[in-house]
Amino acid sequence: MFRHIALLRWTDDSTPEQRAAVLAGLRELPDAIPEIRNYTLGVDAGLAAEGNSDFAIVADFDDVDAYVVYRDHPVHQDLIARLIRPILAARAAVQHDLS
Amino acid sequence: MFRHIALLRWTDDSTPEQRAAVLAGLRELPDAIPEIRNYTLGVDAGLAAEGNSDFAIVADFDDVDAYVVYRDHPVHQDLIARLIRPILAARAAVQHDLS
Repeated sequence: MFRHIALLRWTDDSTPEQRAAVLAGLRELPDAIPEIRNYTLGVDAGLAAEGNSDFAIVADFDDVDAYVVYRDHPVHQDLIARLIRPILAARAAVQHDLS
Repeated sequence: MFRHIALLRWTDDSTPEQRAAVLAGLRELPDAIPEIRNYTLGVDAGLAAEGNSDFAIVADFDDVDAYVVYRDHPVHQDLIARLIRPILAARAAVQHDLS
């Protein structure tokens, strides 16, 4: 298995509606991209006094090639361009073998 | 379930031995902290041209209280102080409900 993790921080002026639209859009990706084996999304619980990101994506694939299909998939790229990039303040990511 | 995700970036002058010591130390935590339900660690595969972090931790717990036990556990805190903090350049984290 191959895992992709992304942690996103939203701009201060992003609205709850914009953040909710990202979550709703990402939730539809497993139906559009069958290469996704497991997909978990989460909004930060607010435990940390400071420094946490706002949103997490953990996506598992059979292998790195399947991850690349997801990464470059037009439905995914459209969602990034329309909903994520306009409110994205920072992004951290790792891809790694899951074995 | 409750999930904790941390993505770490190492300092440019950190050595392979220092990075390996972090991985080895973290791998021992599930034995020391029974509240950990699932624990995956990974070194970034180097796919991204730039901007990725170097190391990922995904830890799952029964609930937020179990996560706090892990976060504050003396074995964990000792590992952070001795092995992680000396080579830590940046950290991103999210904690979220997994449901």
